[in-house]
Amino acid sequence: MRSIPHSLIPLLAAACVACVSPRDTSMANPYLAPQYHGAHQTPELARSPLDPDDLAALQATLLFDEADVAALRLSRPLLEPQVDAILDVWYGFVASQPQLLAYFSSSTGQPDADYLARVRERFSQWVLDTASADYDQDWLDYQYEIGLRHHRSKKNRTDEAEAVEHIHFRYLPALVYPVTATLKPFLEAGEHSPEQVEAMHQAWIKSVLLQTILWSQPYVTEGDF
Amino acid sequence: MRSIPHSLIPLLAAACVACVSPRDTSMANPYLAPQYHGAHQTPELARSPLDPDDLAALQATLLFDEADVAALRLSRPLLEPQVDAILDVWYGFVASQPQLLAYFSSSTGQPDADYLARVRERFSQWVLDTASADYDQDWLDYQYEIGLRHHRSKKNRTDEAEAVEHIHFRYLPALVYPVTATLKPFLEAGEHSPEQVEAMHQAWIKSVLLQTILWSQPYVTEGDF
Repeated sequence: MRSIPHSLIPLLAAACVACVSPRDTSMANPYLAPQYHGAHQTPELARSPLDPDDLAALQATLLFDEADVAALRLSRPLLEPQVDAILDVWYGFVASQPQLLAYFSSSTGQPDADYLARVRERFSQWVLDTASADYDQDWLDYQYEIGLRHHRSKKNRTDEAEAVEHIHFRYLPALVYPVTATLKPFLEAGEHSPEQVEAMHQAWIKSVLLQTILWSQPYVTEGDF
Repeated sequence: MRSIPHSLIPLLAAACVACVSPRDTSMANPYLAPQYHGAHQTPELARSPLDPDDLAALQATLLFDEADVAALRLSRPLLEPQVDAILDVWYGFVASQPQLLAYFSSSTGQPDADYLARVRERFSQWVLDTASADYDQDWLDYQYEIGLRHHRSKKNRTDEAEAVEHIHFRYLPALVYPVTATLKPFLEAGEHSPEQVEAMHQAWIKSVLLQTILWSQPYVTEGDF
């Protein structure tokens, strides 16, 4: 039997605090920019109940460290020109799954093409933001906003859509798998070594899992998160 | 640029119903057996709010199909003799992360060795059950029970432990990553081809993600799950 790589169980809790930048209050909040909000919305972001220390502990649990930040950033120039093709695959997947397409549809079951198109613009931005891997309180607050927009608290409001009023919790973490599995060919499309592709892929898996955890907050009973 | 493997976006929603067995009511519920319950507990299982159709839709979203069932079952004879070594790695990881060890500790921060040992017995059984991949209403009901035992609803009761009263939601899905990443060397320890190892690993990732979703149910506001 092969020996167990104990290198996989590092003491990351302290080291990973370095993955979260201190908030620079002199900078404007980038998530108030128009591409994060609907044409009809005044940008506003509630404060996430988590702070950067909570985020660092969660990143340590996910074995997410500075190497993952570097791998995500390496993926950004590779993915940016492929964003439309990536979204075609993800939208194709959602369209193929009736239980998912229902959330972009009215209560009579008719998919809302305008709503799908407007969400797609923010989805493009999300690919770039995930690859940028900039973590601070502004980023945490925006993750909380994304969660609210999936939950009945704020769904449809950003785009004045009339689709069903709530995305059920269970599909948020479930989408981690198809989103990251179908991303891999796009990470292989450049000139990177197999090791670099694998590092980028694992960093994406950890990051998407982390984000769906943060988006879950509005679903969880107060005090249980 | 390489073409996109549209084979990755199959229409699984219908096909995957086959992954869930109809309940055979003539069989005794296996999850009432003593190894699933504490020495002081009368076995009882509440009904999961999900039924096998809900499970099939969730499996389809996860791209989990009959090939994953076969891959999990292939892993069972490989993992069974390694269960103790696997648990050593997982317990080593928990012990290395203060934010996780806290959940096995009293409010004064003292880890409860008896509690850790008793949970370990059920954890061994969990490895075998995950690899057995038998899905029906009894299995769903037991997943719900596991969720209750992480949540303040029933934590500590199975083992009459006096550790902190609740595991925060965010660490349940986060553990999917370290648990499945550290499993891979054990899947490589047999005589299987790289393709078989990869199939077993991907099936484990999907299954553990699926299970943590089901365990989340007691944390989510009624109607939002």
